[in-house]
Formats: sequence, structure tokens, C-alpha cells
Amino acid sequence: MSDYTLFYFPGNANIAPHVALEEAGASYELSLVDRKSGGLRDAGYLALNPNARVPTLIDHTLGDLVIYEAAAICLHINDRHPDAGLLPPVGTPERARALQWLIWLTNTLQAELLVYHYPMRHVTEDAAIDTVRAKANERLDSQFAIVANALEQTGAYLAGQDYSIADAYLTMLCRWAGRLAKPPRTYPALNRLVDAVLARPAVDRAYQTEGVKLPYVA
Amino acid sequence: MSDYTLFYFPGNANIAPHVALEEAGASYELSLVDRKSGGLRDAGYLALNPNARVPTLIDHTLGDLVIYEAAAICLHINDRHPDAGLLPPVGTPERARALQWLIWLTNTLQAELLVYHYPMRHVTEDAAIDTVRAKANERLDSQFAIVANALEQTGAYLAGQDYSIADAYLTMLCRWAGRLAKPPRTYPALNRLVDAVLARPAVDRAYQTEGVKLPYVA
Repeated sequence: MSDYTLFYFPGNANIAPHVALEEAGASYELSLVDRKSGGLRDAGYLALNPNARVPTLIDHTLGDLVIYEAAAICLHINDRHPDAGLLPPVGTPERARALQWLIWLTNTLQAELLVYHYPMRHVTEDAAIDTVRAKANERLDSQFAIVANALEQTGAYLAGQDYSIADAYLTMLCRWAGRLAKPPRTYPALNRLVDAVLARPAVDRAYQTEGVKLPYVA
Repeated sequence: MSDYTLFYFPGNANIAPHVALEEAGASYELSLVDRKSGGLRDAGYLALNPNARVPTLIDHTLGDLVIYEAAAICLHINDRHPDAGLLPPVGTPERARALQWLIWLTNTLQAELLVYHYPMRHVTEDAAIDTVRAKANERLDSQFAIVANALEQTGAYLAGQDYSIADAYLTMLCRWAGRLAKPPRTYPALNRLVDAVLARPAVDRAYQTEGVKLPYVA
């Protein structure tokens, strides 16, 4: 039996925790939640994750602990595999920066991408839907500019000179933003970061296993 | 000189990190960002936090490290003060649950509360603004029900039997939700949690020092 089970749908928010499991060399299995046929609302899945979202992780080494939220799963895998280099060591400025970006990515950039992709959750009229998406696009432009600018200052990666799981998280979100008027890869610093992340064997394995199509980030 | 400087505005997202500093018995000072007179857009503040939001923390013990995002600052203060009980110990299910809720609170409940309070960021027409707020209110109802239901199962606090900084984070968000059709305190489990959190001396000191009016959570 594996140590973990990760519930996923190809290319969804599970990609970052999936990368974390690969980077850690963890023993895990994947379980597909087929959202196209209502899998997120299946009673069995809702009992694990009442938000009807992927991912969810079961940690079989910790009494079949159930944990959801992609960024939290990344933090948890880091706790369980402290030598895997998912986060910089405690007590360093790099650690604090990785935490800052991980939180910002999930509560700001990811939240805004959800508005952009699902404007119909907020309004009903067609014209208003267009407005919601256009305003989300404007904020996303500012947000990608903020993170690109930070990368110009801190170096190759979000935490500094070394890769952390925050970079895999950012790469996942860049993938979701390819259709923006100004896609993330048009920022040189983001383009470099995405290429560096995608060149990692652990990242490639995660994307490939989920069946994400090339190029992973357009 | 203090070890930390926390940039804040009374009752804003700084309250949770402020509580964390109090719980840890840290040496810190507060710096008011007067958002009513444009302080968030002041060039000096934007250089610290280009998102034009509070809070921001400067850690003077770590080379004047600047870190923003309330949940990240909470995690950072936990890293710097591992014996303060802000998070359960690494390797416990309680730790994973605290991380899950902290992330969910910031990327789901807090993000939705921002939509609820600032619907005009998403649309322009009055009728559409009402729709955006009404739909946010519906989702907030589901979200408070999810966390209340989880509390019924895990015990007094989000992580289990013991308080963690996630509970202070939830209390902060409950304060922002007092005008919902179904305010958080109408859920017995949330009402109990909020009372338990507000009874903590560290929490009371943080709210009182910021000048938040009683009752802190209506």
C-alpha cells in the first residue's frame, strides 16, 4: 500500500501537490475524480472534501488523515519530507519568502484566476459576465507584473537562488493564464522561471502522468 | 529596538498576525497605515507591499526581512517562535488540519468576503453589483456551514482540542461577516469558537490595542 493517495483531475490544482510528492520521492497513488461526470459532487468524495474541489490527499502514514487545499497539502508534504527541499530551511529569509509567495499565489492569483474562468458564478447577464472577466483580467495583469518584478529582484526563483514548491505552484497558475491578453510567458522573468520549473524531472513526471498536453505552459 | 514592525489598519487582516505576535510574547511595534488618507498607495508603503494591502511585517532579527500576506506572516511567526503554540507540532494530524484551515480561510473564505464587501470591483451597474454581492453571500453561507460542520466533528478548535492561530484567523473573518443574512455567530459551533478565542488575553490585547470596538465580533 502507498503512503499517500492524491485525488486529482488532470491539470487542476492537484498539479502542485503532485509535483511535491514526486520531488519528495514519496510512495503514493493517484485517484481520478472525474469532474466531467459529476465526480466532485459524488457523496463519497464530498465526505472527503465538502468544497467539491480537487485536490484532496489521504496520508495513510498518519491514520488516513484527510487534508485538502493544494497549498496546505504542499506544506504538509514538506513537513513529512523535510529533506526534499520543498521549502527552504526554517530560520532563513528564503523560507519566509517562499511562504509569502505560496500564500499570495493561492489567495490572490489563484482566487483571481477563478473569477476570470468562472465569471458566471458572480453575475447572470451576458454583458455583466464580460465585465467581470475583463476586470479580473486587469487585476491579473497587475498581479503577474508584481510577481515578475519580484523575480527580477530575488533571482531565479521566488524564494531566491533555489527552487521551492512555490515555483511549481506559480507554474501551475501560469498554465491557467495562457489566454490572458498578456500571458505570463510574455514577462521574461516568468518565462525563465516556467522553463526552469518544467525542466525538472519531478515536474515532468507529474504533468505527464496526469496526461497534461504539451506544451505544459503555453 | 523591537524585533518586528507590523504595518496595520485597525481590524484589517493584520489582526491575526497581531494576535500571533501577542501569543508569542514577541517584541514588536505597530505602524499605522492610514488607508483612509491613501496610506496604502504611499510610495514608501508600496515599496514594502506592492499589493497596497495590510498587513506587512518587517523582521528586524532576519536582516529587516519584509514579508506580506497575513497567513504567511502567521506561519513565519510560528517558525520564529516554535514554542508559542501557534501551530500544533510537526508530525501530528492536528498540524495538518491547522494548515488546511489556514489556507482555506485565506483563499476561500477571505477571498469571498472581499467579493462581498467590494462587489464594485467586479461590475459597474448597480443591479449587477447587487447580484455579485448576493451570490457571494450565498457562497459564504455554504462556506460558514462547512467550517461549522467541521468544528462539530473535530472538537472545540479547527485543529482539534487545542487552539491554534487558525482559530484567530477564523475569528477575524467572522468579524467581517456580521452583516450577512446568516452571521457566523448564528452557528453554535462558530459562536463557541469565537467566544473561546476572544477570551484569550493575547487576543484581547491585540484587538484593544488596534482600537477595535466592542463587541469585537457582533
